[in-house]
Order: sequence, then C-alpha cells, then structure tokens
Amino acid sequence: MQNTASPLIEISPELVERYVLELASYGAVQATGVSRTVYSPEWVGATERYVEWCTEAGLEVNRDAVGNVWGKLKGREPGKSIVSGSHIDSQTPGGRYDGALGAVAALIALRALREQFGAPKRTIEAVAFCEEESSRFPSANYWGSRAITGRIAPDDPDRVIGFSGESIAEAMRDVGLDPARIAEASRDDIEHFIELHIEQGPILEQAGLPVAIVSAITGIRHYRAEIRGTQNHAGAFPMDLRRDPLAGFAEIASGLINTAHRMGRPAVTTIGRVIVEPNYPGIIPSRVEFTIDARHPDPEARRRLYAAHENLMTEVASRRGLDIHWETMLDHEPAPSNLEIVSVLERVARDQGVPTMLMASGAGHDSQQMAAIAKVAMIFVRSKDGRSHTPDEFSSVEDIVAGIRVLAAGLHALAY
Amino acid sequence: MQNTASPLIEISPELVERYVLELASYGAVQATGVSRTVYSPEWVGATERYVEWCTEAGLEVNRDAVGNVWGKLKGREPGKSIVSGSHIDSQTPGGRYDGALGAVAALIALRALREQFGAPKRTIEAVAFCEEESSRFPSANYWGSRAITGRIAPDDPDRVIGFSGESIAEAMRDVGLDPARIAEASRDDIEHFIELHIEQGPILEQAGLPVAIVSAITGIRHYRAEIRGTQNHAGAFPMDLRRDPLAGFAEIASGLINTAHRMGRPAVTTIGRVIVEPNYPGIIPSRVEFTIDARHPDPEARRRLYAAHENLMTEVASRRGLDIHWETMLDHEPAPSNLEIVSVLERVARDQGVPTMLMASGAGHDSQQMAAIAKVAMIFVRSKDGRSHTPDEFSSVEDIVAGIRVLAAGLHALAY
Repeated sequence: MQNTASPLIEISPELVERYVLELASYGAVQATGVSRTVYSPEWVGATERYVEWCTEAGLEVNRDAVGNVWGKLKGREPGKSIVSGSHIDSQTPGGRYDGALGAVAALIALRALREQFGAPKRTIEAVAFCEEESSRFPSANYWGSRAITGRIAPDDPDRVIGFSGESIAEAMRDVGLDPARIAEASRDDIEHFIELHIEQGPILEQAGLPVAIVSAITGIRHYRAEIRGTQNHAGAFPMDLRRDPLAGFAEIASGLINTAHRMGRPAVTTIGRVIVEPNYPGIIPSRVEFTIDARHPDPEARRRLYAAHENLMTEVASRRGLDIHWETMLDHEPAPSNLEIVSVLERVARDQGVPTMLMASGAGHDSQQMAAIAKVAMIFVRSKDGRSHTPDEFSSVEDIVAGIRVLAAGLHALAY
Repeated sequence: MQNTASPLIEISPELVERYVLELASYGAVQATGVSRTVYSPEWVGATERYVEWCTEAGLEVNRDAVGNVWGKLKGREPGKSIVSGSHIDSQTPGGRYDGALGAVAALIALRALREQFGAPKRTIEAVAFCEEESSRFPSANYWGSRAITGRIAPDDPDRVIGFSGESIAEAMRDVGLDPARIAEASRDDIEHFIELHIEQGPILEQAGLPVAIVSAITGIRHYRAEIRGTQNHAGAFPMDLRRDPLAGFAEIASGLINTAHRMGRPAVTTIGRVIVEPNYPGIIPSRVEFTIDARHPDPEARRRLYAAHENLMTEVASRRGLDIHWETMLDHEPAPSNLEIVSVLERVARDQGVPTMLMASGAGHDSQQMAAIAKVAMIFVRSKDGRSHTPDEFSSVEDIVAGIRVLAAGLHALAY
C-alpha cells in the first residue's frame, strides 16, 4: 500500500450520467422512479447490462450462484481481493441511486483505474449484489452479501417467501439459478470491501459537503410492542376510570422520541407503525400495537438508549394500569468501519481535493454482512433533501464523480 | 299532575327477566351477545314479539311507517301523549340491555300501571324505536326517532347506505315498509318522553347506587384531523431535522387526553381511531390521521374544551413544522333534560325508596331527537363494570326493577 500522495484520478461525468440513467431504465416508474426487485425480469435486464459494461471495461465477468455479478481486474501478484460494489435491486418504487449507484461506481472506478494505471498489483473486483432491499422477499435479509459470507442456511431458499407467496427458491429457478448451489457463492478470499452509497439523509447537505467517509454502521433494534387496556364507550366512561391504551401509547411515543432527540446525534428512534383496535371514533381502544426502531452506532450509548426506552414503557404502563409487553424483532450490533481503510480514504480524499466529513451510517448496508469476512468501509454521496426510498431520490453528477474519485483513489492506494 | 306521595308500584322481577332473555334470543350471539340490526330477520322477530307482549298487556298496538312499534294505554281525557321507550336494534354484537331494556321497561311499566291503577287520565304510550345504533347503516343517525320528529329528508332513504351496500330504502321494502310513506311516522302530539337506558359507564357502580336521573345528554363533537410531515428513512434522518407527524400526533394525543382529564368529570376526550401512513417500522411516517371525540354537557365548558383542543393542535403543529388540518364530522349541542320531569322523577324515586343520583349522559340517545318535539328526561340503570356495546353488558334484575319502578311512578305522576 502506498503512503505517498495519490495520483489525481479522472472520472467521466458523461459516463456516470449515462450508466445511472440506463440502469434506471430497467424497472422505470414514472419519470424518476425505479421498481426492480430481485430475480424479476427488470432485474435480469439490469444485471445483463452490468455484465456488458464490465466486459466493455476489460473486466473478467462472473455470475455467482445467487446471481451476484462480479467484474474482476486481475492483479499482477497473488493474494486476496479488494472489492467494491453495492446492490442492484430497489424499493418498489425507489429511486435511481440507492444501491445501483454503488454497483455503477465500482465498475466506473475499476474502468478508470485500468485505463489510467493499467493492471494493479492486487486483484480488484466490482460487484453488483443481487438483493438488499427485502422489497420482494421481506425476510431475504441481505440475500446477495449473505450468500458471499456463507450465511444462508440450507432451508432458507424454501422458507424465504415473497409478498406474492412464492419462495425465493422458485424465483431463483425462474431465472436459471439452482438454489441447491447457493453455498458455492461463498468467498474466503476478500480482504477489503468498500461500498459507495447515497447518504439517504440530510447531514451532508446541511454541512455543505459532497462526500462522507463512514465511521460505523449503526446498531439497530426493532421492537414490536403491544399495550392492552379496557375497551369502553367514549362518552360514558370518565377519564379518571379509564384504562386507555392510546393514552399510554401517546405518552410512551412522545417519551421515546424525546429520549433519542435529547441524547443527540446520531441516536434515532422512530415509531413507524401503529395499529389501534377496534379503531372506531367513539370507542376507547382495547389495544395499541406499535413498532420502535431505535439506532445508535456506539455500543454503550445504544445500551443506554434501549434501557431508557424499556424503563419508560414499563413506568408509563404501570402508572396507568395498562398491560404492556414487547419483543425484539431484529437486533444488529453496530459495525465499525475498518480504521485502516477509513484513514486511507480520508487521506486520498484530501489528495483528490474532495472535502469530506466522518459520519455514522444510520441505515443498514451490505457492508455489515461483508464485515464478517473482510475489512469494510463505506463512502457516502450527498442526497438532495436527504430523500431515499422514493422516486425523489437525487444526487448530482458532480457529487457522484467526487465520491467515485475518492473510491478509485482508495482502491488505487490499496491495490497499486 | 299529582304532587302527593306516589303510590308504591310493584314490578315483577320474573317478568323483567323473561322479557329481557326472550328478546335477547332474537339475534343471540354466543351466551350473552345480541346482534340485531334494523330490518334484519332477527329484528322482525323481535318487533313481532314486542307486538304480542303489548297486546297481552292490553295496549293498542300500532306499527308506524318506519317500523317503530307503539303500545298505547288510552287516557280518559284528551291531550298529548306521555311516551316512554328506547330502541330495539343492537350493536354487532352488543349485549342484551342497550336499547332493548328501555323498550321492555316502558311496556312493563304500562302493564303494571294498567293492572294496578286502571286507565290513566292522560294517554301513555310505550315505543320500541326501530333503529339507533347505526350498526347496519352508518349514517342512519337515529332513524326511528328522527322519523317521529319529521327530520328524515325525502332523499335520505336512498342515500343512507349499509355496510353491505344496500340502501335503507331497499331494506325497508324487504320487510314490507314503504320508504315513500316515512313522513306519516311523524308525531306532533307527544308532550313528555322518558327513556330508561343502561348507564353504559361505571359511575353508578362506583357510587353504589342502582339508578340515576339524567340531567342532560352531553354535547358531542367528532373531529377528523390529519397531520402531514415528511416521510424519510428512520436510520439516516437525524431527530433534529425530522418533520415526524407521529411525534406531533403523540404530543397532541397526550395533551388532549390530559386536558379533558384535568377539566374533570364529566369532560371526556377520546382518540379512538388512528391511521398511520405508510405504516412501516423503518420509515418516518408521512401522515397520521386520527379522530377526536370530545364531550361536555355544559355549553360553556364544552366551548372551552374545544378551544383548548384546537389551540393545542395548532401550537404543537406549528412548533414542530407540521401541517395540520381538521374537520368537524359531527357536532351535537348538549340536550338538557326537562327540569319538570327531572324533579318529578327525583321525587317519585324517593317515594319508591329507590336511591338515585343526578348525572349527565355521556352517550347520545333517542331522547336527544325527541327533545325537538317533546319535554324529555332519562333514567339510567347501573351497568356492571360500566361495560356496553359488548356481550359482557349486564344489569341486575334488582336494579332494573328499581329503575322501572321510578319510570312507572314518574308516568303515574304525570298521567293519573
């Protein structure tokens, strides 16, 4: 690895714009939306186009057993690979950038490195992961990167069921993939993984910066909570005698949101889903079910955030004579970025003249999975208005070029 | 009207129990539930049985143009009628007592008066209103008593549509009633109307009393409110930059409920219905829709309650940068009971040895409609655990007998 100043790397804005727009035509929804779920015809079209682009860029192309596409720039020396990429599937509809940009960025970076610097010492690979969004199979849970890390269980293909009832095994067979061979997708020869992604939040925009280096992927927990009270007539039951679960819910929801707000960035807590029963205007509800999504990238702060949430729920329910219980639906530890890669990326960004900041990722990413087998880090590109998972998603070509220059320079520092 | 002590009136507990249980067999659900919507086969059966009982009691029976059943105990002198009764339809399922008890109580009171005191001076009538619950036609809005007050518009029968899509005009024709003749049901010859009903709340039980005289039917307003914010990723958007409508909703719901609680009985405010969009765990919602049911029987206190609610909603939304708007879906002025009847009922209850208290009705009742054409008052019978609109509804035969004795003595004081 070089420690001298990295050479200036040129990235073509026209190529970036063409690739982003062309990829967005597979599953296009209205003017700027994309709906491209794993193993759908749109997905097949997009991966075929990605294969063509890899071939044009002079990369060795390989499709693995779950449909991840790999483009390899072979190194002159033996050793593990340095990999970059992201997922090619989308929300329904999402925008043009979430995932797709990282797959395209890796390809463009490798193309530029090969054109401007020839063959590297170390092998570098671009990857388009087949699935990350769970937008067709709600429990797919990073299907593409999980396959690479060897974490897909033998019975998963038949147990992961789509919103329309089909298993992911059936969906794989429909596009010519054999679910029995998933284990063949696993890799043990990747040393570094760097993922470029849109920020999906407003922090870079607020800071007036195009690019961030990600210090950690946040830890996340989802609770499903339920408060039970006593259903009664809204008119005939005095306030002082009610066991109103909605009153308890409102106090708890306010309290949880205030707790995260007061703890300060990067703590976040969201109540995104609420079901009230029986949900009639004139009836005190019997039951309120809700979800809590609470995240922090620091393990100790995360523990304090969850303890504060649980204490508040217990206290409010007990004081109001309500029954409450909750279960943890999902619990991911924070994934800190590899410090060596972070420091390389910070240094090469300075060399490329790209101003950056360090931030935690509040969203989950394939990098979390890849951390099981490789040193990982991420690069974020500024999102307009922080929007994501919507056709309104937008990042400027200028910012994207800045991000890819940091990525390419980082790969150059590690591989040449 | 007599001002001397009212004679003791005997009411048969066996007859009360038999009538309540037999009526409950029309539309019986499980052990104690009743599902009997207007113009259904169960409703037809119940009204036919009511007709038989009226005839057995020596009353002149008449079914009017909307299917209300009237049993008349003719007075020796001319003049307007004194009427008692309630509705014979139910929730789906409700219990045995809501409505049905008032229809049965009037019939039993008239039967006892005729048997124990012969013909009255003034005509007394028992009535079983066809519809009050809106459990088949959500906009029926007191169909039975509205017909009597002449408030059903000519196009209402075709515009009032059931949960299964049928018009109330079609439902009437199915049971042999002609919607074109609804106007014939209107009455201008009723002077007093007294409705006996279960309390549907826990106040009598808490006070250890069997019967209440109702001072007023509460004023009620339903708002439908909507808060709009900005939908964003639950992980990537810092708390301090969110426009989270759920955070605004939780603060507003807590505030409204606390306002009514602090104002004290009989103020009540209920958030019974909440719809969150898009309602996913990991997404900050874009929109929360909710209802507010807020009631007070005192016009000035009611005005203050609504002003406090509206001010809070405006303040919270503005401070949080959220868009809020609301509309009034329903607004009923309080209906104070007629003081003359209330004072008669209080006096005769003392004479009968039935301890009572004065309370406001937090629920709406047919009496509110009848107030447009007659002097009205109500008698409440204690509800076990305050339960209503559920098969768990229960009032003891002892309490019911006490209530009917007050009703019969009141009718006696006005009519003999």
